[in-house]
Order: sequence, then C-alpha cells, then structure tokens
Amino acid sequence: MHELELLQSIYARSTNLSGVTIGPGDDMGEIKINSDRLLCAVDQLVVGTHVTETTNPKAIGRKAIARCFSDIAAMAGSPVGCVMSACVPTHTPNDWCDAVFGGAKEAAELWGGPIFGGDIASSDGPAVFSVTALATPPTQGAVLRTGIQEGDFVCVTGELGNSIAGHHLSFNPRIQEAQELLQLLGLALHCMIDISDGLGQDASHLSTEQLQLVIDTSLLPLREGATVEGAVRDGEDYELLFTSSAKPPVELATVIGTVEQGMLQVVTTDGTDISNYGWMHK
Amino acid sequence: MHELELLQSIYARSTNLSGVTIGPGDDMGEIKINSDRLLCAVDQLVVGTHVTETTNPKAIGRKAIARCFSDIAAMAGSPVGCVMSACVPTHTPNDWCDAVFGGAKEAAELWGGPIFGGDIASSDGPAVFSVTALATPPTQGAVLRTGIQEGDFVCVTGELGNSIAGHHLSFNPRIQEAQELLQLLGLALHCMIDISDGLGQDASHLSTEQLQLVIDTSLLPLREGATVEGAVRDGEDYELLFTSSAKPPVELATVIGTVEQGMLQVVTTDGTDISNYGWMHK
Repeated sequence: MHELELLQSIYARSTNLSGVTIGPGDDMGEIKINSDRLLCAVDQLVVGTHVTETTNPKAIGRKAIARCFSDIAAMAGSPVGCVMSACVPTHTPNDWCDAVFGGAKEAAELWGGPIFGGDIASSDGPAVFSVTALATPPTQGAVLRTGIQEGDFVCVTGELGNSIAGHHLSFNPRIQEAQELLQLLGLALHCMIDISDGLGQDASHLSTEQLQLVIDTSLLPLREGATVEGAVRDGEDYELLFTSSAKPPVELATVIGTVEQGMLQVVTTDGTDISNYGWMHK
Repeated sequence: MHELELLQSIYARSTNLSGVTIGPGDDMGEIKINSDRLLCAVDQLVVGTHVTETTNPKAIGRKAIARCFSDIAAMAGSPVGCVMSACVPTHTPNDWCDAVFGGAKEAAELWGGPIFGGDIASSDGPAVFSVTALATPPTQGAVLRTGIQEGDFVCVTGELGNSIAGHHLSFNPRIQEAQELLQLLGLALHCMIDISDGLGQDASHLSTEQLQLVIDTSLLPLREGATVEGAVRDGEDYELLFTSSAKPPVELATVIGTVEQGMLQVVTTDGTDISNYGWMHK
C-alpha cells in the first residue's frame, strides 16, 4: 500500500464538502466554524517505525506532538490545542504511558497547543499514538502546497540529512519561522510543505504538470554527519520547504534551487530525477 | 491499566490551560477559537476489540465515526467535521482500507461532519482507527457530565442491552435527539453522557460525593433479546443517559430512576451497587 495513492483514491470522492475550505491533500485541512476558520491535521507515531521500543518515552510523546505541529508550521498557522489517542500493548506499564503523555503534554503546552482530550485503548500490536492538532490560519490565509510560479527560488529552513542521529527526536517544529517568513515575504511566499519523507519526495508535492523544481545539491545545507544523498533521501528533517519570488533572509532559510518549466517534478542541476527520493510508505 | 484512572492521573496536571473552556474528563473538550467555541473529541476503534476481523469493512468505518459522533450527541453539539487516522497491518489489501474509509466517509457526511483530513500508517498489530470529531456547542453551552441535582429524574433514550446482536454496528448517534431534549427541557436538563461502557459504569460518571443515581431496573427499556443484567452491563448502547428536573416526553426518553442523597454512585432500588457494572477497559 502506498499511503499517498490510497489517500488520494479515498479523497477523490471528497470534493465540495460543506464548510470545508481546504480539503484533504495539504498539510492540514481547514473548515469554517461560524465566522472563524480552523486548521486541523492528524498524524500518527508508531513504535517500531518512527521510534524504537527503547526510545525514551518522554521523547516519544514529544515527537508525536512535534510531528503533527510541524504540519501547523507548514501552513504558517498558530497552534490552539490538540487531542491525542494511544493504543498500547495490553500489558504496558502505566509509568511508560504516563511518561509518554508527560512528554507530549509538555511539548504541546510549550508550543501553544495544549492537549485537552484523549483516548486510551490496548491491543496486541505495537504502541500507536495519534495526534490531532488544531490551529488558526494567518489572517492572510494559510500557505498551501499549491501556488508555485516559474522563476521562484526553492528554499529550505535549517539543515537536512542524518536526522536519525538525534534530530528526529529533538527538533522544534518551525512554527515561529513560518510566521516570520510569511511576515517578511508576504505574497511572494507562494507555497510551502514540511519535509518529513525526504526532500525529493516532499518537493514533488509542490510541482505541477508544467513546473519542476531544479535543485542545486551543492547548495544543500547539510546537517552534521549528513551526505548529499542523505539530505535528499533521509527524511524526518521537519524543516520547511517553500518557493518564493523574493529571496528569504539567510538567517531564516537557504536557497537550494529554482522553479523552471518542465514535467520532471524534482531534478538536480545535473539532470537526476529525485522526485521519488525519500522514505517510502509501506 | 485502567483507562480512566490513567487518563485522570495524566490530566490532573492539565488544569488552567490557556483557551481551554472544557478540559479533559467530559465527553468532549472545548476550546476558544477567536470569538467561537469548538468541541473536540478523539475516539479509537480497534479491530479485535470493538469489531472482529470478519466484520464488514464498511460497517467498521461507519462504527468508527458513529462512536465518536456519539460524544457530540452527549454534549448536545452539532458536528462540523472530522479527521480519521488508520494504522493497519502491513499487508492489508487496499480494497479493505478503501471500504472502511468509504463507510466512514458516508456516515460522517450523513451526520454533518465530513472527513477533511487523514493519515495512514502500518504496523504488525491489528488495525486501529482514530477519529477526531469537531463540533459547535449549542448557544446555551454544551451539556456537561457535571450538574446533577437531588430529585432529578434519571432518563435514557432508546433501548439498552444486547447491542452485540447488531445494534453496535447499526446505531445512529443521538445527535438530533440531544438537541431536541435541550430545546424541550432547557435548563432542566442538568447533565448528560452517552452509554458506551455500560449503564452502571457510565451512570457513575454523573454521580457526586453527595448524590447517587437510584435505578429502578423494572423500568429499563430492554432491547430485543436483552436481559436486565445485560441492559446494565453490556455497553455499546450509544444511548444518551441524562438527569433532568423535568420529565422528558416519552417519545424521546424513558425515566429509569431518580437522584437521591447518598455516596454509592449508582444503586438499584433493591440496594445493589451497580457503579462498576460494565465493560472494563483492559
């Protein structure tokens, strides 16, 4: 099963939903609540996939929240709250659950979106945590995955690659940075996504049938211990990838390429198609 | 692990959260979004616990939504949307997933809260679906679990017991009925919960240290094939249990007892303590 294909087949039927202002397919959905708009996304953390059984349980809880709040950053939203469900193996010690929820609670409150509801169940499988984050969009509207334009700079916050060495447990979702970018770039900020599956694959979600992203791999900001290959493929960077017609300040982001006419989605300057480089969903 | 105790220990630390108007512990939490209020609840369906592997997948999806939307009914809220995550066994056929999501989508739209986001992951465990429902509270405010008063009638919608014969897959969340009850009873409607774990256990959540619910089991509206014992213990009725100082119309609910001074939480008229009767969370 390929997650994206399956979700697309499911959601192809979900068009023109009453009250839904951003439908499935972006980092978050958006609905109207009376006069307000609300962004909402759900994301899962599976022990054995995203962390191991020996990962510190507080760090597991923190990561479950951080992964989902990274979606808020990708829309330039502001967190308002979240709920978290847990399905844990039948004989899981209460202390372990308590530590996971403790780590999650601390992180959610630090980032302005406190946990205000939850559900706990048990099964024979590995622990699965599902976090639903709620956020408000910026006044000018959420930044979407769509909107790329020819000639845009392709930009990324922070550093890429070798996340497994520790970054995947300690990263801060780029909520503040996204808001600063929107403030500084305004309408020049055309589209944005967070890098969870890998630069190549996630960048492909910004491309269109006519426009491709051309990446100069010599410009990639490498994390300590990262290779160029890893920076393109590793994933779990939780950095913001965006295109903009204006250059962002160097303190906030690095320009790594440009948007050109072409149908290859994502290519390097030497012509390698990297659209599928990244972590494949099983 | 006992779900309620664990959640309570976790949420004991979640007091005075900024923007949270109803904290963890009720059927839904509530937060402020600018000028509006939003109700939110998360609920899981685990294959092997709430349904079997041979349950029709469309019915599984429908039930995942219905369980969570029953929480909306318990607050007398109005659905606005939902998101659903799925963690399924690694080699699950796409068709099965598609059918589950199809059943969920149909139900969610029928009840006015369309699915507008989702996440899919895989693991070695059984399939787990987590639904987060969003709703608006009634203008007079959500009906809480707290607020019971001495002399109240204890009332229940529909019928109880033997849900396993089919009702647990076919029930409609009592969203409309809750709103009618609130309309008709107004401030006389003191508190409400939906019956998922069993009448005895769920009724105990409405009791206080000074006030107990006294149930006349001869008045229990039995579902076809149900025994009195089953009506108290079976659970998965997804009916509304509420207390009111005015009698509800017989078309909407049955009076099954009264609220009296006492510390036994939930007792029958012959003195049996049934506060713990119901499905115990493993």
